[in-house]
Amino acid sequence: MPAEKEIKQYRNPIPTTDIIIEYQEGIVLIERKNPPYGLAIPGGFSEVGLSLPDNARKEAKEETNLEIMIENEDTPMVFSDPDRDPRYHMISITYIAKGYGKLKAGDDAKKARVYSLDQVKEMIDNDALAFDHAKILMQYLKQRGYVK
Amino acid sequence: MPAEKEIKQYRNPIPTTDIIIEYQEGIVLIERKNPPYGLAIPGGFSEVGLSLPDNARKEAKEETNLEIMIENEDTPMVFSDPDRDPRYHMISITYIAKGYGKLKAGDDAKKARVYSLDQVKEMIDNDALAFDHAKILMQYLKQRGYVK
Repeated sequence: MPAEKEIKQYRNPIPTTDIIIEYQEGIVLIERKNPPYGLAIPGGFSEVGLSLPDNARKEAKEETNLEIMIENEDTPMVFSDPDRDPRYHMISITYIAKGYGKLKAGDDAKKARVYSLDQVKEMIDNDALAFDHAKILMQYLKQRGYVK
Repeated sequence: MPAEKEIKQYRNPIPTTDIIIEYQEGIVLIERKNPPYGLAIPGGFSEVGLSLPDNARKEAKEETNLEIMIENEDTPMVFSDPDRDPRYHMISITYIAKGYGKLKAGDDAKKARVYSLDQVKEMIDNDALAFDHAKILMQYLKQRGYVK
């Protein structure tokens, strides 16, 4: 898909897909190679011609080498605050998925690692996550009943 | 918001917000003034600087004159099949809401009317809805338990 090809468009927010990948008793986070730096859930720009779940599967594979089974395809979490990304108004459609295969960092990530839910909670408290991913992961932990 | 201003962007699908407005024992549908013609749930392009729920509230007001209370802000329905709109790859973030106030068609609509759920089911069967709104409304009716 020609995501790099520029065309003229109306001024819309840019849709992205992010994925909370459950893998080996924890969650997969990547260390970003490009700014904004920091730990983040895997994801990327949505491309013309790919449904959002297909886009999420492609991004997960590229960034973590994992195949994923998405559990909330029809009603994903959506984050659309205009200030959630410092670069532009980006919308995150966030899927929750189980990961399968061998975890390995892809081109856009320096590292890809599994973190326990306790570690994730600590990162949220310590403001160690990029973008609004602390908010996204907190909502996930609440949905799962890990925090109240 | 400068939705009409053109800028250069990567080639992304265009996000839109649609709203299933529950009002007086039925659902509000509009008759479209612009192609593609047909009956549709109210909605429109997402604008830079507005969160998607705010965008939905603005579109609902413009097209139906109603104020709305959204019930699924955090986990809306999302439709992203590349072929769902004949014009371009458009993503629909679909909210379910209760409508308040006096129903009146806005600029983009010829008419805005309330249809009973039986009428909606009939329209789905008769292919009377624009875009993939038959699919969207069928998913809604299933969520509500009106159809199996």
